[in-house]
Amino acid sequence: MARAKKYVYFFGNGKAEGNGRMRDLLGGKGAGLANMTNLKIPVPAGFTITTEACNAYFDNRKKYPPGMWEQVQANLKKVEKAMGMAFGDAKAPLLVSVRSGSKFSMPGMMDTILNLGLNDTTLKALADRAGERFALDTYRRLITMFGATVMGIERQLFEKALERMKESRRARLDTDLSASDLKELVGVFKEIYGKETGESFPADPLQQLKLAINAVFGSWFSDRAVTYRKLNQIPGDLGTACNVQAMVFGNMGENSGTGVGFTRDPSTGRKRFFAEYLTNAQGEDVVAGIRTPLHIDELKKRLPAAYDELEKTYRKLENHYKDMLDIEFTVQDGKLYMLQTRVGKRTAAASLKIAIDMVGEKLIDRETAILRIDPDQIEKLMHPSFDPKASVKVIGKGLPASPGAAVGKIVFSAEDAEAWAARGEKVVLVRTETSPEDIGGMHAAQGILTARGGMTSHAAVVARGMGKCCVAGCNALHIDEGAKTLTLEPHVLREGDFLTLNGTTGEVILGQVPLVAPDLSGDFYTIMKWADEIRELGVRANADTPADARMALKFGADGIGLVRTEHMFFEGDRVKAVREMILADDTEGRKKALAKILPMQREDFIGIFQVMNGRPVTIRLLDPPLHEFLPKTREELEEIARDMGVSFQKLQARNKALHEFNPMLGHRGCRLGITYPEIFEMQVQAIMEAACHVVKRKVKAVPEIMIPLIADVKELSVMREMTVRIAEEVQKRTGVRVRYEVGTMIEIARAALLASEIAPEADFYSFGTNDLTQTTFGLSRDDAGRFLPYYVEHGIFEHDPFITLDRKGVGLLMRMCIDNSRKVKKGMKMGICGEQVDPSSVEYCYEIGLTYVSGSPFRLPVARLAAAQATLKRKMKKGLSRASV
Amino acid sequence: MARAKKYVYFFGNGKAEGNGRMRDLLGGKGAGLANMTNLKIPVPAGFTITTEACNAYFDNRKKYPPGMWEQVQANLKKVEKAMGMAFGDAKAPLLVSVRSGSKFSMPGMMDTILNLGLNDTTLKALADRAGERFALDTYRRLITMFGATVMGIERQLFEKALERMKESRRARLDTDLSASDLKELVGVFKEIYGKETGESFPADPLQQLKLAINAVFGSWFSDRAVTYRKLNQIPGDLGTACNVQAMVFGNMGENSGTGVGFTRDPSTGRKRFFAEYLTNAQGEDVVAGIRTPLHIDELKKRLPAAYDELEKTYRKLENHYKDMLDIEFTVQDGKLYMLQTRVGKRTAAASLKIAIDMVGEKLIDRETAILRIDPDQIEKLMHPSFDPKASVKVIGKGLPASPGAAVGKIVFSAEDAEAWAARGEKVVLVRTETSPEDIGGMHAAQGILTARGGMTSHAAVVARGMGKCCVAGCNALHIDEGAKTLTLEPHVLREGDFLTLNGTTGEVILGQVPLVAPDLSGDFYTIMKWADEIRELGVRANADTPADARMALKFGADGIGLVRTEHMFFEGDRVKAVREMILADDTEGRKKALAKILPMQREDFIGIFQVMNGRPVTIRLLDPPLHEFLPKTREELEEIARDMGVSFQKLQARNKALHEFNPMLGHRGCRLGITYPEIFEMQVQAIMEAACHVVKRKVKAVPEIMIPLIADVKELSVMREMTVRIAEEVQKRTGVRVRYEVGTMIEIARAALLASEIAPEADFYSFGTNDLTQTTFGLSRDDAGRFLPYYVEHGIFEHDPFITLDRKGVGLLMRMCIDNSRKVKKGMKMGICGEQVDPSSVEYCYEIGLTYVSGSPFRLPVARLAAAQATLKRKMKKGLSRASV
Repeated sequence: MARAKKYVYFFGNGKAEGNGRMRDLLGGKGAGLANMTNLKIPVPAGFTITTEACNAYFDNRKKYPPGMWEQVQANLKKVEKAMGMAFGDAKAPLLVSVRSGSKFSMPGMMDTILNLGLNDTTLKALADRAGERFALDTYRRLITMFGATVMGIERQLFEKALERMKESRRARLDTDLSASDLKELVGVFKEIYGKETGESFPADPLQQLKLAINAVFGSWFSDRAVTYRKLNQIPGDLGTACNVQAMVFGNMGENSGTGVGFTRDPSTGRKRFFAEYLTNAQGEDVVAGIRTPLHIDELKKRLPAAYDELEKTYRKLENHYKDMLDIEFTVQDGKLYMLQTRVGKRTAAASLKIAIDMVGEKLIDRETAILRIDPDQIEKLMHPSFDPKASVKVIGKGLPASPGAAVGKIVFSAEDAEAWAARGEKVVLVRTETSPEDIGGMHAAQGILTARGGMTSHAAVVARGMGKCCVAGCNALHIDEGAKTLTLEPHVLREGDFLTLNGTTGEVILGQVPLVAPDLSGDFYTIMKWADEIRELGVRANADTPADARMALKFGADGIGLVRTEHMFFEGDRVKAVREMILADDTEGRKKALAKILPMQREDFIGIFQVMNGRPVTIRLLDPPLHEFLPKTREELEEIARDMGVSFQKLQARNKALHEFNPMLGHRGCRLGITYPEIFEMQVQAIMEAACHVVKRKVKAVPEIMIPLIADVKELSVMREMTVRIAEEVQKRTGVRVRYEVGTMIEIARAALLASEIAPEADFYSFGTNDLTQTTFGLSRDDAGRFLPYYVEHGIFEHDPFITLDRKGVGLLMRMCIDNSRKVKKGMKMGICGEQVDPSSVEYCYEIGLTYVSGSPFRLPVARLAAAQATLKRKMKKGLSRASV
Repeated sequence: MARAKKYVYFFGNGKAEGNGRMRDLLGGKGAGLANMTNLKIPVPAGFTITTEACNAYFDNRKKYPPGMWEQVQANLKKVEKAMGMAFGDAKAPLLVSVRSGSKFSMPGMMDTILNLGLNDTTLKALADRAGERFALDTYRRLITMFGATVMGIERQLFEKALERMKESRRARLDTDLSASDLKELVGVFKEIYGKETGESFPADPLQQLKLAINAVFGSWFSDRAVTYRKLNQIPGDLGTACNVQAMVFGNMGENSGTGVGFTRDPSTGRKRFFAEYLTNAQGEDVVAGIRTPLHIDELKKRLPAAYDELEKTYRKLENHYKDMLDIEFTVQDGKLYMLQTRVGKRTAAASLKIAIDMVGEKLIDRETAILRIDPDQIEKLMHPSFDPKASVKVIGKGLPASPGAAVGKIVFSAEDAEAWAARGEKVVLVRTETSPEDIGGMHAAQGILTARGGMTSHAAVVARGMGKCCVAGCNALHIDEGAKTLTLEPHVLREGDFLTLNGTTGEVILGQVPLVAPDLSGDFYTIMKWADEIRELGVRANADTPADARMALKFGADGIGLVRTEHMFFEGDRVKAVREMILADDTEGRKKALAKILPMQREDFIGIFQVMNGRPVTIRLLDPPLHEFLPKTREELEEIARDMGVSFQKLQARNKALHEFNPMLGHRGCRLGITYPEIFEMQVQAIMEAACHVVKRKVKAVPEIMIPLIADVKELSVMREMTVRIAEEVQKRTGVRVRYEVGTMIEIARAALLASEIAPEADFYSFGTNDLTQTTFGLSRDDAGRFLPYYVEHGIFEHDPFITLDRKGVGLLMRMCIDNSRKVKKGMKMGICGEQVDPSSVEYCYEIGLTYVSGSPFRLPVARLAAAQATLKRKMKKGLSRASV
C-alpha cells in the first residue's frame, strides 16, 4: 500500500514541519504558528491539518481522506509529549483549541473552540491543578462553545440558563458564582445539550476533537463564509486548514493574563509598542468586551520578565516579517506564549509612515514600501475626512457620487446656496436633481445631495469634476421646496438645519460631523515621489477648466486626458447662447449663436494651456445629446422663450423634437459633428486659436483633439479632414505653428472591433470605458441602479463594471483593439479616460499596454501608486526586483 | 522596348477580339457587342477601350497609358476597312459613336455621343450620300451633344437657339425646318460653342474622338456616377470601358428605322416578342419621347426581310444567353444592325414565369432558374399592391415601418376604427403614436399612420407582426384630434376622407389608389418548392399569436424563431392585469396579478403549439422594460387609477419611478427575470402547461424557451435553473413529458464575446441582431432617424445596419460567437431573429454557419429563395453545380 499523503503538520519545541510561506496549504494562521515556532518564539505546541485535507473531505462526501485521522492521532501524541500532558489523561490532562484558518483572513468563518479534552474525568485533574472553580468554569465554557459552534445549538439557551443561575444567586458577575453554582450549571448545560441534540455531551476527548474538526471543515461552506467569499472575490476551492493547539490559560490567577497589540501605532504609524493586557483573563473575555483591558505597562509592572520576553519577541517578529504586526499572546503562570501573529491593519496615514520609517530603518527597500501601501486607502487622504473620534447618526443613503465629506446648512436652491455662502455660511445644496442653472450654487456649496439621478447624473458628473462631495439618487429623500423642508423618514429637516454628507459611502448624516483636513505633504509627498520614479504608465487627469487643471497638477497629473468641452457650456450665461444654438432653425442661426460661444471656449482653452504649460491636453469635442442643455420644466421654458424672443410653442416643439428615447445611443458625438459640422468647426477653431495665442506668448501648447463616438473609420475620416482644414486655416491666419494631434475615443464596441481600420486615421486613441462598458454590456449606467447592486451582491457580476474595468468582456475588446491597431501603427499612443482608476483597473491597463490612464484629479494619487505597483509586480515576475509583499 | 499592353479590343466582320465573359475588362456593353459579333449577328464594327486603360489614365494624371492612342488609331483603321469608309474622309466619311460602359449598368454615367467625325468637309460627303437636310440635322445634333456632354456647355443654350429658330420660321416640329434653316442653325450652334468654350468647334475628327474618350473616362468620377456607385455599393476602382462604334442611321428615309424590344413580355413573362419600331428615326428620338414608336408589326409590314432577320437574331440571342433579353437595333436602308443586348428587366411575376418556362423549354435547369430570380423582387408579390396603371399624388413621407399598401377612410381613434370597420368601412388609423389600447383599432384598420415613433415604435412592431401596412414617424403630419383633421402642408384632410399608405416606401398618398391582390399559387408556388428542395438553411417566422403562426405556415416557415411574449400582453383587457402587476408594491401583489395573466398566456401558447404541430417554437420570455406597458398621458393615468382603486399620486409616483433614461439599456430581459423571478416563472409555467396540454391531446409541442438580454453566463445559469425547476414541476404535476430546450438570445456584445462560456448553459442561441446592432454601434434604432439616413446617403455607412446585417462589426461578433461556441458544443443550434432577412443578410447567415434565419412571415419567401441561392452559390464555388447566373 502506498504511504498516505501528508495531511498534518506539527509545530512545537522550537521546530515546525511547516513554514511561513505555506499559506496555501496551512492557511494564514497555521503558517504564522509554524513560522513563530521556527523562530524559537514560545508557541504552545500543536498541529495544522491542511487545506488539501479539507478539500479531500468535501470531495469524498465528508469523509476524511485515508491516513488523515491516523496522522492527527500521531501528532496529538507529539503535542502531548511536547507539553508533558496527555489528551484525556486523568492526571495531567492536555486540553486543546481548534481553529479554522484559510489562506485569506475570513471573518465569515467559524469561531474558535477552546478547552477540548475536558470531561468528568479530566475535570477532576484540572481542578486539582488549577482549582475547582476554574475547572468548572472552563467546562461550562467548553459545553457552550461546543454546543453552539459544533452542534448548532442556540447560544441563547446556555446564556439564559447562566442568567437564571446568576439571578437565583443574586450574582452580578460570572465570577460571583461559586464552584458549586458552576457545578450545578454544568449539569444544566449538559441537559440542554442532551435535549437539543438527542445525545449526551461526548465524554470521549477524541470524539470531541473529531466533531470539532468536522465543524471547522464544514464552516468553509457556511452561508456566511460563502457570502463573504463572494463579496471579497475569494475562490471557493481554497478550502480551510484546521489548527489544533495545546491550551494555555490566561485565567489561571494573578500571574496569568492575556493581551493583544500592534508592534507600532496602527493609527499614526509611530514607532511605539501599542498593546493592551488583562490580568487573569482569557482572550474571549477581551473580545466579548466583558472586561476592559489595560495598558501594556500593567504587564511590565506585574510580570517584568514576561514583558521583557514579549518585547524581545515582538521585535524579533517585526524584524522577521519586516512589517508592522498584530499579535496575540497569553501569559500562564508567568510564562509567555504567543498565540497568533499577522500583518497588522492600519490607517492610510499610518501605512505611509510605517513604510517610510522602515525604509529609513533599512528593514525594507523603497520598492517594497511602495508595494506595501494599499492604493484604495490612499484616496482617503485626498479629501477632508470625518474626525474618526466623532459618532455619527446616519439617516439616509444614496449613491456615493463624488467622494469626500461635506458639512453645512441645508438650502434648497442654487440662489440660496450662493447667497448664504456669500455671507460666509457653509451650505449643503439639496435638490431633487440639478441642472446647468445650479452650477453656481453647486460651486458655493460644501456638498450636494439629490433625490434622483445616477452616478452620471448632472449633479454627479459636475461634482466629481469640481472635486466636491456629492450624494446622488437618495430615493428615500422627499423635498418640499415650498415649505423648505426635507423628509428622510422619520426625520424632517428645515432650511438652515445642519446636514453632513459622506460622498465616499453615500451616507446622509444628521447634524455636523467634525472634519479633518487632508495633509498632502510629508509622507504622502515622499511616497508619491517614489511611485512616480518607479511607474511606467502615464497618469493624466480629467479636467474641464483652468481650475481643474491646477488641481490636476497638484495631484500629480502628467497631462490632461480628457477635457469635456460640454462642461464649459454649463457655466454662467453661456448656456443661453448654447440654447440659442440648439434652438436655431438652420445652419445660419446656429453659426450666429456659435459665434457668441467661440470666444468663451477660446478663453477656457487659453487658461488650460497656460496652466498645463507644454503638458499634453486631450480635448474632446462636444459629446452629449443636445437636449441635455435644454430646460426641463414649463416655467424654465417660458422664461427662456421670453429671453430669446421666441414663441413658447416653437420652443416647446423644438424641445419635443430633440427628445430621444435612448439619448445614450442617439444623436451625439461625431454624429452631431457630421450632421451639424459648424458646431465642431467652432470648437476646433477655439482650440487652435487658443493654442496659437499661448504659443505666441512662449507658452507651449500640445492640443490633442479628440473625436467622440466613432463607430466606423469613415466618421473619423470626415472629422479629421474638417479638423485639419480648420487647424491649418487658423495657423495660417495667426502665423503660428502648433503641434496638434487628431485622435478618437474608442467607446463603441464596433470601433474596438474594427480598430485596425481606424488606426491609420487616428494619431491616438482614448478608451472611453464608461460608454464602452455601457454598450458592451447593453447597460445604461443611469438606469442600472435598479438591478446592478443586486447583481453585484449576488455574485452575478463580480464587480460593478463602471468602477472596476470588466477584463473579460470590455477588456477583451480593448486588447483586440490595442493589438490590432499597433500591428498597423507601431507604438500608437493609447489611453483610457473612463474614470476606472481603481488599482485593479490601473494594473490591467498597464498589462495590456496602455500609454496612460486618466481620471478625476482626486483619484490620481491612487493611480500613480497603483501604476508603480503594477510596474513592480511585472519586475518581480521577471525576477528584476527584490521587493517582497 | 516592351510591347505595349493591349488596351483596345476590336469587333466587326463576324469576329471579335473579346467575348461575352470579359465584362470586367470590356464593360457590360463592350462584352455584349463582342459576344453578338462572335455570334455572327450583324453589329456595326467598332472597338472597346478597356477599363484598365481608364484606370491607367487616372493613375497617370489623366494621360493615356503608353500605346493606347496608337491602338485606338490602328483599330479605327480596322473599322474603316470593315465599313468601307474612312474617318474624316471627304468622300465616304465614317461617323462613330462613343459610349461608356462599366461592368455594372450605371445610369449615373455619361450619355452617348453620336455622329463623331462630322466637320464641314465630311458634311458635304454625307449630304451627297443622304441628303443635305439629313447631313445638317446630324451636324447640329453632334455639336449639341459634343458641346453639352464633352465640353459641359449648358444644353439649354442650344435648345433655346433651336426654339428661337422654330419660332421665327413658325415651325411646329424640328422636321419642319428646312435645310437652309438648319444650315443657319449650325452656324448659331458653332457661335454658342465658341463663346462658351473660347475655342472653335474641333474640325479634326481625331481631336473630336480624343476629347470624347476623355469625357467618357472622366464621367467615371462625375458627381452623379460617384453618388450612384455609393448608393449601389459599386466599387470605385472598376473604371469604365469606352466603346467606339461605326454609326448606322435609322433616319435615312422610309427604309430605315430604329427599334427596341424584349424577347418576352417583361410585364407578364409571356413568351412573345415584345418590341416597338419607329420608321425614319434615330434612337434618341424614341428615348426623348418626341415621337411615339409603333408595334413591331410595322417593321414586318414595311421591311419583311429585315423583320425576319430580327426574329432570327433575337431567337439566336435568347438561345445563347438563355435568358429574356432587352435589345436595341437600327435598320439602315433595309439592313438590320444590332446595337445593344442585355438581360432584360422584368416584373417579379414575369421573372417567375420566364424562369419556369425556360426550365420547361430545357433552356436552363432548376438551379439556374432559382439563381435568376431577384429575392428582393419576390417580396412585392406578398402584399396587395398598387395597380401599376394608377397615378398617385404623394403628399407626405414617413418611415416604411411595415410593408404593403392600405387604402381607407381616415379615422383618428382606435374606437372609431373599430366602429367604422364593424359597419363595413375600410379605414386608415391616424394617430400621433399608438399605445396598447389601440390594438383593436389597428386590427380593424387597413393600415396605420403615425406622426411619431421609429421603426421599432409600438405601431411599427405591432403592425409588422400583424402583417399590416404601416407608415410611422411622419414628422410633417399634424393631427388635430379635437377638430378631427390632419394637416400635411398644404393639404388638410378630415375624418372620412380617403387616404392611401405605401408601407414599402413610407409614402402617404391622397385619395384611393386601386389595389391588386397577391397570387401565391402557380409560378410562385413552383419556385418556392424548388427553393425549399435546394436550401440547407432553415427559415422560421417571428410570430406572436396563433393567427401569426397560421400566416407563418402559409409563407413556408419551418418553425417559429421568435414568439415575443410581450405582444400577448397588449391584447384586449390583458393590459389591465399587466398594469396591475407592474404597479404592485411587492412580490405578493405581482403574483396575484400574474395569476390573472397566466391562463391567457397559456391559451396563446396552446393555440400556437396546435397550429405549429411539432414544428419548433422559440418563445422569448418578457423582454421590454416594464414602463412600456404603462399609460402615457395624465388622463389615461387617472382612468387607470380609478379602475384599479389606486390613488393617482401613488400611480404617478410609481410611473415616474419606472421611467428610464435609456430604456434600451435598462431594467429589462433577464434583468427583470432575475430581480422579479415571479414574472418569468409564470411565463415558463404557462409555456409548459400549454405544451403538456397539447401533448396530452396527441399534438406534438417543441418549446424552445429563450432567455433574453444575457451579458454574462451567470445570468443564464440562474434563469436556466429556474426554467428547469418550473418545467419539471409542471411535467410532474401533469404526468406528461415534453421535450423542451432552454437557450438564450445573443443580443449584447459581451455575450457574443464570451459565448464559449455561455454555450455549456444554452441548448441553442438566437442572435437578436436588432439589439446586437444597436449595442455594437451604440445606436438607438428609434433615435437614428436624425442622422442614419444622412449617413447612408453620404456613404458613411454602406447600408442601414438594421436592414442589412453589418458584416464587418456585428458579423465579426457573430462569427466569433459561433466559432468559439461550437468549439465547446459541436453543431450547436443557432439562429437569428433580428428581422434582417434581406438576401445579403441571409447569404451571410448561411456562410457563417447559422442553422436558421427568422423574420416576419411576409419576408419568408425572400429568405427561402435567398437561402436556396446561397446554397447554390456555395455549390458553384465548389464546382458542384452547373447552374449559371
